[in-house]
Amino acid sequence: MPHIALPTDLQGIRSAMAFRPETARPLNALVEILLTGPSTLTRGERELIATYVSSRNCTHYCHSIHGAIAAAHLGGNEALVKQVKTDFQKAEISPKLKALLVIAGKVQQDGKLVTSADVEAARQLGATDIEIHDTVLIAAAFCMYNRYVDGLATVQPEDEALYRERGRRVAREGYVAVSEEYLGAHAH
Amino acid sequence: MPHIALPTDLQGIRSAMAFRPETARPLNALVEILLTGPSTLTRGERELIATYVSSRNCTHYCHSIHGAIAAAHLGGNEALVKQVKTDFQKAEISPKLKALLVIAGKVQQDGKLVTSADVEAARQLGATDIEIHDTVLIAAAFCMYNRYVDGLATVQPEDEALYRERGRRVAREGYVAVSEEYLGAHAH
Repeated sequence: MPHIALPTDLQGIRSAMAFRPETARPLNALVEILLTGPSTLTRGERELIATYVSSRNCTHYCHSIHGAIAAAHLGGNEALVKQVKTDFQKAEISPKLKALLVIAGKVQQDGKLVTSADVEAARQLGATDIEIHDTVLIAAAFCMYNRYVDGLATVQPEDEALYRERGRRVAREGYVAVSEEYLGAHAH
Repeated sequence: MPHIALPTDLQGIRSAMAFRPETARPLNALVEILLTGPSTLTRGERELIATYVSSRNCTHYCHSIHGAIAAAHLGGNEALVKQVKTDFQKAEISPKLKALLVIAGKVQQDGKLVTSADVEAARQLGATDIEIHDTVLIAAAFCMYNRYVDGLATVQPEDEALYRERGRRVAREGYVAVSEEYLGAHAH
């Protein structure tokens, strides 16, 4: 049961955002730019970074929904998403993305763990400064979203089909558009 | 030295924000609402939560600047800010704020550590649902800002006078107004 009186018809971050639409707007704007805005990283790659960090933080709602969005962008390849959560070094993803996931995994623990060698390795595999920046900020941002979802004890359903359906919709329509619906319904 | 080519005339989060103004805008909008927007928590109290979390994450730039902003809101009481960083249970702050700092400290580690008893204790001391929500989100957000600043290896000056001066200015003018200046100067 959530720690505070969140709307009971919503789950995970949606319930927290509907409780406080003022902070929901910049939270949604940030994720929209980072994960769907113009970038040389694909939307699937960026969702995999978000999924991986959420998985390491053991935040079920976030790694399930972003895993589903990632799969929607990767031709429905749920096995690949699962492999990234379990052991990304063995996943069929580019060496560059693996190097970025190493950086993301360190940021998830503590930003100070990222070394010049980690960054140089990513750069040697083709990562640009902006890709490195965005990887650090995606990882940092999901340390926030994960703590927000867990810290309020939001409801985090186990139903995989629910995440699959929502994931497809967010992949198609984007975060801000989908959020306006549940934020609007709960405006106070 | 920063891991990527950040503007050399800026430090800490400012250098990262100037590098990527697109993400800087929602990052600034979020902190502005959380720390300066309408709230039954004072601006000093909210800055103390941000300072405490940044201090636990050992992010020098963030705990120095937010500590300075907190002091500016607390009649220049730098000793109180230092006491909150060191051992807030012995600080001259309200029992309610101490209960909220317990929650913030748990969110800093992992949101799942917050218990119903922690929340009930805060509530018994007068904390409202929205104050508990905002405490969780401030703590979560600073886990992001701290990782962003550290993960890019931004320059974090040691000069206390610099933070004191900037802190007074942010306390007076707000985050968005001050940020427009350095974001504008680096627009690309």
